[in-house]
Amino acid sequence: MLEKRTPIPVGEAVKKIMAYQLKGSAEYISINESNGRFLAEDLKATHDVPHFDRSPYDGFAVRSADTKEASMENPAVFEVVDHIGAGHVTSKNIGPFQAVRIMTGAQMPEECDAVVMLELAKAYEEDGKNFMSIKRSYNSGDNVSFKGEDAKKGDSLVKKGTKINPGIQAILATFGYAEVPVAKKPVIGLFATGTELLEVHEPLQPGKIRNSNAHMITAQIERAGAEVIYYGKLPDEFDTCFDAVKEALNSVDILITTGGVSVGDFDYLPGIYEKLGAEVLFNKVAMRPGSVTTVAQHEGKLLFGLSGNPSACYVGFELFARPIIRKMLFSEKPHLRKETAELVAEFPKANPFTRFVRTAVNYSGGRLVAAPSGVDKSNIVMSLAGANSLMILPGGTRGYGMGDIVEVLLLEDHEGSEWPW
Amino acid sequence: MLEKRTPIPVGEAVKKIMAYQLKGSAEYISINESNGRFLAEDLKATHDVPHFDRSPYDGFAVRSADTKEASMENPAVFEVVDHIGAGHVTSKNIGPFQAVRIMTGAQMPEECDAVVMLELAKAYEEDGKNFMSIKRSYNSGDNVSFKGEDAKKGDSLVKKGTKINPGIQAILATFGYAEVPVAKKPVIGLFATGTELLEVHEPLQPGKIRNSNAHMITAQIERAGAEVIYYGKLPDEFDTCFDAVKEALNSVDILITTGGVSVGDFDYLPGIYEKLGAEVLFNKVAMRPGSVTTVAQHEGKLLFGLSGNPSACYVGFELFARPIIRKMLFSEKPHLRKETAELVAEFPKANPFTRFVRTAVNYSGGRLVAAPSGVDKSNIVMSLAGANSLMILPGGTRGYGMGDIVEVLLLEDHEGSEWPW
Repeated sequence: MLEKRTPIPVGEAVKKIMAYQLKGSAEYISINESNGRFLAEDLKATHDVPHFDRSPYDGFAVRSADTKEASMENPAVFEVVDHIGAGHVTSKNIGPFQAVRIMTGAQMPEECDAVVMLELAKAYEEDGKNFMSIKRSYNSGDNVSFKGEDAKKGDSLVKKGTKINPGIQAILATFGYAEVPVAKKPVIGLFATGTELLEVHEPLQPGKIRNSNAHMITAQIERAGAEVIYYGKLPDEFDTCFDAVKEALNSVDILITTGGVSVGDFDYLPGIYEKLGAEVLFNKVAMRPGSVTTVAQHEGKLLFGLSGNPSACYVGFELFARPIIRKMLFSEKPHLRKETAELVAEFPKANPFTRFVRTAVNYSGGRLVAAPSGVDKSNIVMSLAGANSLMILPGGTRGYGMGDIVEVLLLEDHEGSEWPW
Repeated sequence: MLEKRTPIPVGEAVKKIMAYQLKGSAEYISINESNGRFLAEDLKATHDVPHFDRSPYDGFAVRSADTKEASMENPAVFEVVDHIGAGHVTSKNIGPFQAVRIMTGAQMPEECDAVVMLELAKAYEEDGKNFMSIKRSYNSGDNVSFKGEDAKKGDSLVKKGTKINPGIQAILATFGYAEVPVAKKPVIGLFATGTELLEVHEPLQPGKIRNSNAHMITAQIERAGAEVIYYGKLPDEFDTCFDAVKEALNSVDILITTGGVSVGDFDYLPGIYEKLGAEVLFNKVAMRPGSVTTVAQHEGKLLFGLSGNPSACYVGFELFARPIIRKMLFSEKPHLRKETAELVAEFPKANPFTRFVRTAVNYSGGRLVAAPSGVDKSNIVMSLAGANSLMILPGGTRGYGMGDIVEVLLLEDHEGSEWPW
C-alpha cells in the first residue's frame, strides 16, 4: 500500500527538468502591446542616435571660430539669420558672425559647431534685424550632441530574454520597431484535484475548503510570463481523470496539477503518469515544503504534479516550473535570483531537509535583511501574501538566529540567476 | 521674450502636488481579473482558518489517551474503523483503540485529538478487519491543525492599497472573494508635442526623430497602476491645441503632455494653462534632468507638463505623477522607495542642482550597490533600459566616487515610501 519513494536533492531535480529544453518561439506584436513581454531577439540600433548632429538646448547655433575673441569687455555680436524648431532644418548658409536661433533637439546648421545656451546670450532687435551677443568663447563641439553619440547603427542594446520595461519601450519606438519580436507566451494547462475543494463563490461546508491553489498558481504563471488555461477540478474517478489529462496535453506546452501526488489512496496522478507512459523524472524531493512534488515528461511536454498544500504548491512552482517557463521566454537567467541577506528574526527549528521559508526581504542601511513572512507551517496560506522571497535553509542544519547570513531567492526580481544551486 | 521662472526644490514641488488629494474610487471585479490590481479595502478573514480541526498529514486519527502505553516493546494496536479523504467527514463515533485512516486536509473525527503519520504506523488486515499499530505515544494535539490557528474571523490580513500578488490571490480565494474590491484605475490622458516627432512606423527624416516618449510614458503609467488614453500628437497651432486639451480634460483624471513646456517659441503649454485659467503649481524645479517640468491644477484635475526630453520626461513622471496615481490607488506609501546604496562607479560631475541619475542597483554580498546605467546626458534614451532606479545626488555637491554612499529611488519595487524627501 505504501509506495517507497527516493527523495533527490533540489538541485538535481531542477537539473533533470532543465535538461528538457522545451523550445520557445517568437511572434511579432504591436509596440502598443509589448510592454511587459520578453524580447525574442537582441534589440539592435537600426540607425545612429542621434542620426544627425543636434542641439541639446534652446539657444543659438554659431561657428565657434567667431567666438574666440568674445569676453566680458568685448562681447561678440551675431546676426540671427534663421530660427529653427525641432524637426526643422535651416535652408540658409551660415556665414561669419551669423547665428541661428535653435530649439532643443533641432538639427545643427551645417556650418555651425557650437551652441550658445539661450540664458547666456543677449538677444535684441535693431533696424528690423535680429542680433545676439555673447561674452565668452566656445570650443568646437560645445553643447552639440553628435551623430552616433548615443548609439551606433548595429549596436546591440538590450539582450533577448529581457522583460520589456518603459525604457525599452522608448528604445523600441526610437528605432522604429512598430512590430516587436517577443517570445510567445508558453501555454500552461492547470488542473486542481481534491474532493475537499469548493469553488470561490461557494459557501463553506464541513470539512471542505475553497480552492485557493488554482488562483494562486494562475497568478504565479502570469508573473513568470506565461499564459494559463484553467481546466477546473479533476473529477474523482480515475478513467475520467486520465482522459481529461490526456486531452489537455494536446493543447498546452506544460501541464500543472495541484494535489493528488501523495501516496494516499485518493492520489490518482502517479497512476495517470503510468498509464500515459510518461517518464517520471522524480517523485520526491529532499525539501520542505513540497517533498511530494512530481515531474514527468511525455512526448516533449512536461507534467508538473505539485502538492495540494498551498505553500508546497507555491514553492514547487517557483523552483521547478518557473525556470523552464523563463527558458522558453529566452532568458539566460531563468532561475529565481539568489542573494544573501542577514536574518533579523529567530528560526529555531532544525532543518532535516532543505527548507524554503516564505520570507520578507527588506533593506536596512543599504543591506538586505530577511525575516519569515509568517508562521512557517506548510498549510498556512497567510504567510504567502507578505513573501517576496524564499529563504533557503540547507538540510542538515540546526536552527538559525538573528544576525546569521542566509541565502534568499527573490520572487519579484526581474533579473534572475543563471543557476541558483 | 525670455520668461523668468523661479525654480523650487523637488520636495516642495512634490508637496504641492500631493496637496491635491485626487480621490480614488473602488470597483468590484472578478477574482479572475484581480491579480496585479490594488486592494481598495483591507482584506479581512471572513472565517477562521482552518474552519475545522484538520489533519495536516496522511495518517491515522487517534485518541491520544489510547497511545499512552505504546512503546517499541509494546506497540498499541488500533482497529481502523473508517477511511476519510479530504472534504469528507466521518459519520462514526470513534471508541477506545479505534482509529480513522485520514488524508491530508481532512476534518478530524470529533473524538480524536492526534494524528499518527502514515510512515510511523504499521497497517495490516486480519479476519477482514483493518488494523494498525504504533510504537510511541502521542500528546493531545500532536499533528493537528486547529480551527482558527492560521487566522481568526475578522483578522485584517492585507492592507488596502497593496498590489495583489499570487499569495494575495490565494487568500482572496480562501475567503470567498469571488468579487474583489479593487481601486479603479485612474485614467491618464496623454498628448505628445513636437513637430520633430515621427510615428514609430514612419521612416527617418532629416532633423526628425521618432516619438519615443509616448510609448515610454504609457508603460510608466501602466507600471504605476493606471490606465492611459493616448490622444496622439498635439497640432502645431495654438487654438487647435487648446481645444484638444480642454476636450481631453473632460474624460481623464490627470492629463500629461510631453514637450512644449520650455520657454521656447514653439512651447504652447504655458499659454494653454493660462487660457484655461489653470493654477500653475510650479513651472521650474531645481533638478536635473527635468527642470522645466510644469504642473497645474484645473477644476480638481492635474495637468503635468513633462519635458520633451526622454530622460527628463521619465524622471518627471516618476517623481511627480507616480505618487499621485498611487495615492488614488489607496497606497499609504505612494512615493518611490528610497534606500541607500554604495556607489561602485565614478560620477565626477558636480551637481549645481539636485541630480537624478539613471542607475542600475544591484546586490553584492548582501549589500545594495549602484552604478549609473549609461552615460548621463539627458537626451540619452539608451540608459533608461538598464535603469531600475534613480540615484539622488543633492544640489551643491561636488562629484561622487567609488565607495560613496548615495540615496537611490527604486523604480520596480512594490513597497514604496511614505515620503521620500
